[in-house]
Amino acid sequence: MNRNAERALGACGCDVIVASDPFTVAWLTGFAPDVVSGPSPFAASPVAVVGADGRRVLVVSSDEEPPTAATGWEVRSYEGFTVGPLDPHGGQRAVLADLRVGGRVAVEPHALPSSLASVLPAGTADASGTLRRLRAVKAPAEVERIRAAIRLCDAGQAAARAAARPGLTELELWSAVTGAMEQAAGERLPLLADLVTGERTAEIGGSPGDRVLAEGDLVLCDLVPRLAGVWGDSCATFALGEPPAGAREAHARACETLDALAAALRPGAVAGDVDRLGRSAGLDYPHHTGHGLGCAYHEEPRIVPGGETVLEPGMIVALEPGTYPGPWGLRVERVFLVTEHGAEPLSGHDLRLDQAG
Amino acid sequence: MNRNAERALGACGCDVIVASDPFTVAWLTGFAPDVVSGPSPFAASPVAVVGADGRRVLVVSSDEEPPTAATGWEVRSYEGFTVGPLDPHGGQRAVLADLRVGGRVAVEPHALPSSLASVLPAGTADASGTLRRLRAVKAPAEVERIRAAIRLCDAGQAAARAAARPGLTELELWSAVTGAMEQAAGERLPLLADLVTGERTAEIGGSPGDRVLAEGDLVLCDLVPRLAGVWGDSCATFALGEPPAGAREAHARACETLDALAAALRPGAVAGDVDRLGRSAGLDYPHHTGHGLGCAYHEEPRIVPGGETVLEPGMIVALEPGTYPGPWGLRVERVFLVTEHGAEPLSGHDLRLDQAG
Repeated sequence: MNRNAERALGACGCDVIVASDPFTVAWLTGFAPDVVSGPSPFAASPVAVVGADGRRVLVVSSDEEPPTAATGWEVRSYEGFTVGPLDPHGGQRAVLADLRVGGRVAVEPHALPSSLASVLPAGTADASGTLRRLRAVKAPAEVERIRAAIRLCDAGQAAARAAARPGLTELELWSAVTGAMEQAAGERLPLLADLVTGERTAEIGGSPGDRVLAEGDLVLCDLVPRLAGVWGDSCATFALGEPPAGAREAHARACETLDALAAALRPGAVAGDVDRLGRSAGLDYPHHTGHGLGCAYHEEPRIVPGGETVLEPGMIVALEPGTYPGPWGLRVERVFLVTEHGAEPLSGHDLRLDQAG
Repeated sequence: MNRNAERALGACGCDVIVASDPFTVAWLTGFAPDVVSGPSPFAASPVAVVGADGRRVLVVSSDEEPPTAATGWEVRSYEGFTVGPLDPHGGQRAVLADLRVGGRVAVEPHALPSSLASVLPAGTADASGTLRRLRAVKAPAEVERIRAAIRLCDAGQAAARAAARPGLTELELWSAVTGAMEQAAGERLPLLADLVTGERTAEIGGSPGDRVLAEGDLVLCDLVPRLAGVWGDSCATFALGEPPAGAREAHARACETLDALAAALRPGAVAGDVDRLGRSAGLDYPHHTGHGLGCAYHEEPRIVPGGETVLEPGMIVALEPGTYPGPWGLRVERVFLVTEHGAEPLSGHDLRLDQAG
């Protein structure tokens, strides 16, 4: 991960970076804390300190299991879970104060608690925009981790397609999908998802609920799991039996658009131009055409109207054209790696409209 | 929820409170954002502004669904999910700046981003300790919400007991438990949990993994779901068939200790004294004897050695004595409401060591 620390120092032009945005910390160090139950009363959000003098320090709770010293990061911890007085934020502040950060310091003000700012020198620079842009180009090791997260998406999509049937509720189908993904991963997973069926598909997305699946329903399943600190992404829409009128044509158009968008991914392509291509194909969707992903599930390059990002090798792009005319909607999504000459698909899941394929 | 805002103003003795700890914001407003997939690229953590002049403002992303105006809170939102430039933190900062907060202002420095501190007056006071202590005594409406979260725990514990059998992996059992809880709730749930079996029970807790359950195993299941912004908690340990030598006696002792601890819960009791009672019963556990819960899953009153908190009516206490001698461990847990004269059990799940009860 030290490649990213060096890139960050080079781009920020400072003596020390104190990173506190959880996405940045994950990108720099490879460490992403548990999130499935929200903020912990026993931990503060982790902080990474990167010095031009070679200093690489990760500040975490004593309960957390960060990367080992072999990665080049020194781990400094404060007391987390305890039967004594509970003060993780005070503990973290004391560790940071003890590091005596000085010189020209760059921070992420939107994610730096003011209690920590007070132990840093006055006059820090704002590195958040620079760091966010740097994250768009992935190192080969990051790409490998993203491939693994996308294999989980493939497993989840296959489980959704296999388990869906009239009479199940969305939440019962969801249970089959998460079970398959967590069992494939061998662990619990942070998991963002849309799982909507029937008329709910016209709403673009949403969490699974009590709705009972019926013959002729579309099932829209967008699965976004985090594995080893990076996110995968995927979407498919399939029909239980014979789809609603117009859905076959719309689905074919969405798949053709996805292919055309994928063919447009190459170094030098401009995000806004790719976005325009998606919207010129007779589809109508209110959301982005695509986005990067990595330590966050939505990041640069954002494929949006007017997007100025120029694609480079090593960028990851999820493309997800859709259409939601009502009383149904559909979307297809695959993730690509921008290569020297084009783009390599990373997703392997079935996109066909017919459930059995 | 305005009762809590008034208590906060009274205790802090200031003109305005700017709350940014997610637990405090949930306590004040009833609003808790989605957390199951971690921090969102489309939102900042919510902020609540409480003025002695009656101002009650909740600042959230436009994607979020906070309580309605009927609750007395004015919702001000900034752009979240967008096909335009993405800058939720900048949007939140602009909304807060527009509120022109002045006078004697109290904040939570550990949770106040320095980008937001810069639009508040200099010389703010630190209200975090005061607010954390206030949260320990629950209003009747909060107690009702906690009861509902604990009913989900009961459903999950019943599902674990019904589904566990030799040959399943922990993750397969987990899938049955989460499926039952989410279907009982009608929605996805933030869920903290220990689910460990066999020799893993000696480790006190942990996430479910690939271990395959076997005849004679103990199953330790600690379920902590969040529903409507508040947490429930529960633990039981049961055996698949005949338990390991010594486990029956230890389990009986843990249940007797739980009963004795429950009998000691009453207004005026001191946390450290209750803790000592738990540790004097022949059990040996390295963790707390108990804890409060509400908008956080671990809060005051913490039942720990030397704990000075004096119990009051309206406090919620989870009691969880255990013992982990190896090669197995066990724990039992129930949640109680401190009443005028004692404590009312809120948990209804089965604690028996024999799986079928």
